[in-house]
Amino acid sequence: MRILVIGATGIIGKAVVQALQGRHEVLEASRKHGTYPADITSKESLLGLFRKVGPVDAIISAAGSAAFKPLTQLGDADFQLSLNDKLMGQVNVVRLGLEHVRDGGSITLTSGVLAQEPMPGTSAIALVNSALEGFTRAAALEMPRGVRINTVSPPWVNETLEALGMKGVPGIPAAQVARAYVESVEGPRSGQVLDARKFTA
Amino acid sequence: MRILVIGATGIIGKAVVQALQGRHEVLEASRKHGTYPADITSKESLLGLFRKVGPVDAIISAAGSAAFKPLTQLGDADFQLSLNDKLMGQVNVVRLGLEHVRDGGSITLTSGVLAQEPMPGTSAIALVNSALEGFTRAAALEMPRGVRINTVSPPWVNETLEALGMKGVPGIPAAQVARAYVESVEGPRSGQVLDARKFTA
Repeated sequence: MRILVIGATGIIGKAVVQALQGRHEVLEASRKHGTYPADITSKESLLGLFRKVGPVDAIISAAGSAAFKPLTQLGDADFQLSLNDKLMGQVNVVRLGLEHVRDGGSITLTSGVLAQEPMPGTSAIALVNSALEGFTRAAALEMPRGVRINTVSPPWVNETLEALGMKGVPGIPAAQVARAYVESVEGPRSGQVLDARKFTA
Repeated sequence: MRILVIGATGIIGKAVVQALQGRHEVLEASRKHGTYPADITSKESLLGLFRKVGPVDAIISAAGSAAFKPLTQLGDADFQLSLNDKLMGQVNVVRLGLEHVRDGGSITLTSGVLAQEPMPGTSAIALVNSALEGFTRAAALEMPRGVRINTVSPPWVNETLEALGMKGVPGIPAAQVARAYVESVEGPRSGQVLDARKFTA
């Protein structure tokens, strides 16, 4: 398969690329590095990306940020950033990318376990993650040409916890999270939220 | 208790007011009619409402619209309306209303069963409903002074189905949906999504 990974240079994206490489042709898009520069918060950037890449069998988005702050400190700008970036950025990957996905292909987005299991400071993140999951369940009912759509919900990833210096929070390796993306691309599921903790080798 | 109902003249809001009246002092706010005019899409309007109403024991929001259209017909403006209105309108009820809720009081928002059980045309609605549920679970962890927060998830309501001329879709009466709001206000729950189908008399 020809697979476009958006967010390919992030901690999860890198692991996803590694898990798919060898068996598939993987195209790496990223805001900063990557073969294909792309910013999901810009529709123009996404349109340019999909035009340049051409037809693919799968699109994976492991991109997007949302604000991590106590509720009382979350300002309008924090909510706006979260909605524009991780939420509508990924929704726009679907809206704009769909026509470039071949018949029977798939689109996979990324939410996160805070949707169901929040912690203090994650009101905006939980909002965005849950929104992506609801969108996925509904959008799957309208995908044309046998195209599937799923969302992977990663837990805290060890490499992220290390980078943030967060100790005592349980995580799993990015390589294990990547298995859920492989299942979404290679398996038959659609309209599902894949809890990445459940996809062991 | 002194209870502010926002969206008090809607199909669900009216039933909620009726269910609470007698036992409680109910203040009715609404975009169009109601004792207290209020538009949840405007922070200024919400600030004015809460100032005018003063301290309350509970705020209930049964307000907010989102776009009902096939995915391919949902434009940027449809998503923006849905995010600004039913989603951030209600999130702002929490952000701005919280300080007017007395110790041990509660805030109750409204999502909808399409969050978990979508149908074609509900990608934006499912997104918004799920977002409200994720936000509620997370925000509950940070509520001060024993204030609780829940979201009621109504199914299709008979009165709405009738008004829309939708036949063959199963619904329940608004009066039954209202029971979930009563449970949210009078019961001990917090951080929960109350499936209104489960609250029979």
